[in-house]
Amino acid sequence: MHTAIIGTEELMGGMPVALGDEDSHHMRSVLRVSEGEPVRLVDGRGNMRAAVAVSISKGGVVCEFRGGVETLPRPRPRITLFQCVAKPVRMDWLVEKAQELGVERIVPVVSERVVARMRRGEKQDRWGRIVASALRQCGGAWLTDVDPVENWAGAIEEMRCFPGPVLIGALSDVARPIGEVLESIGVSGRGESIGWLIGPEGDFAPGELREALALQNAVAVSLGGNVLRVETAAIFAIAGTLAYMG
Amino acid sequence: MHTAIIGTEELMGGMPVALGDEDSHHMRSVLRVSEGEPVRLVDGRGNMRAAVAVSISKGGVVCEFRGGVETLPRPRPRITLFQCVAKPVRMDWLVEKAQELGVERIVPVVSERVVARMRRGEKQDRWGRIVASALRQCGGAWLTDVDPVENWAGAIEEMRCFPGPVLIGALSDVARPIGEVLESIGVSGRGESIGWLIGPEGDFAPGELREALALQNAVAVSLGGNVLRVETAAIFAIAGTLAYMG
Repeated sequence: MHTAIIGTEELMGGMPVALGDEDSHHMRSVLRVSEGEPVRLVDGRGNMRAAVAVSISKGGVVCEFRGGVETLPRPRPRITLFQCVAKPVRMDWLVEKAQELGVERIVPVVSERVVARMRRGEKQDRWGRIVASALRQCGGAWLTDVDPVENWAGAIEEMRCFPGPVLIGALSDVARPIGEVLESIGVSGRGESIGWLIGPEGDFAPGELREALALQNAVAVSLGGNVLRVETAAIFAIAGTLAYMG
Repeated sequence: MHTAIIGTEELMGGMPVALGDEDSHHMRSVLRVSEGEPVRLVDGRGNMRAAVAVSISKGGVVCEFRGGVETLPRPRPRITLFQCVAKPVRMDWLVEKAQELGVERIVPVVSERVVARMRRGEKQDRWGRIVASALRQCGGAWLTDVDPVENWAGAIEEMRCFPGPVLIGALSDVARPIGEVLESIGVSGRGESIGWLIGPEGDFAPGELREALALQNAVAVSLGGNVLRVETAAIFAIAGTLAYMG
């Protein structure tokens, strides 16, 4: 079913809705939706409503609702990815996959060895467009939240306050195999909120890794014998978590 | 450590080795290796040997061995990915990730709804270069084998003869959750060779799915509630398998 994203207030209302530019373009030029075709409107916060495209023109697409609001549960487990910013193509790809796999939130982190030097807020729009596009393509009703870029100190604070374990993809000697860690978390029932911290292309600086591992909720996790590229490590971590707990 | 790929016979010999064009280029222009620097030569079949770059020029890079041959065990579990050919960028990416994650073999399959119509053998060189490049980047000593493209009938025969379960990423009603399936395979000890069959962008044709599921070693597996892109489904399947059994 063709999906478009609108605001929560609009979704809750009864009036015809004019889709935004990106959704109009997607419906009209990519999906080639015809007037009268059913579509699915979501707000990215779990709410969804059946509708019909009643007017399609260069000016945009207008939809009318054809039913009530249905609310889908938030994807479980609730995964937050603390991701040191990777090179652009790889980071974009990773953000897309995170949305497809139902990650709740991405916190982009600029650690010491991140190549890109970004201002807070930069790139956030771009990543936001990528998650929206992935939601349109793959359905679902929840958008992955992309936080503004955090510096290392800010990320440490976010992780300290995180309401669940933060698993750290680490090449450290103390790292335990991912399967063992996920099984023990699953068993202890803390599996509701899971954080993952994944390093950048050049890995964490030694001091950073020590600081992260010193957090009370941190667990060093080995992602296996191969050296993985950043985006592979992140998807491996998320997919493993879902396979165990999803 | 900088890695280059050479033939098994050369690796077993005692003479200085002239690297091929792609490895020479990678050592010289990408890694900027200097004369006298240690490098790691592998044959992609598990054998590895320490060496030193003794001559670096536009004509190529020559290495001399500095130790004996070490043989690394094959990655476990032994995963074969029967992958219906995805659109080029996504297929390329998927092949790269399969190498990084230690997949043993990829069998590219042209099923009914594969968009690309390819001749047998086409693309194999390209995918071979991608796995070699991923091995150079990420280390390891085993190259993922990329088979020639199979048609559907050929793929069914390959799966029928496969020495282990073939898990089929399916949206079918009979599909069991990936975690449950992997746990039961792990327990029964059949986990040595695992096949995965992943459909193309437009999914399997209904008759194809019935035919595949009728194989005695086939198991229909649900990859979770989200609709995943082809390459995401494949990596999710592989990563889940590794998390459980790696």
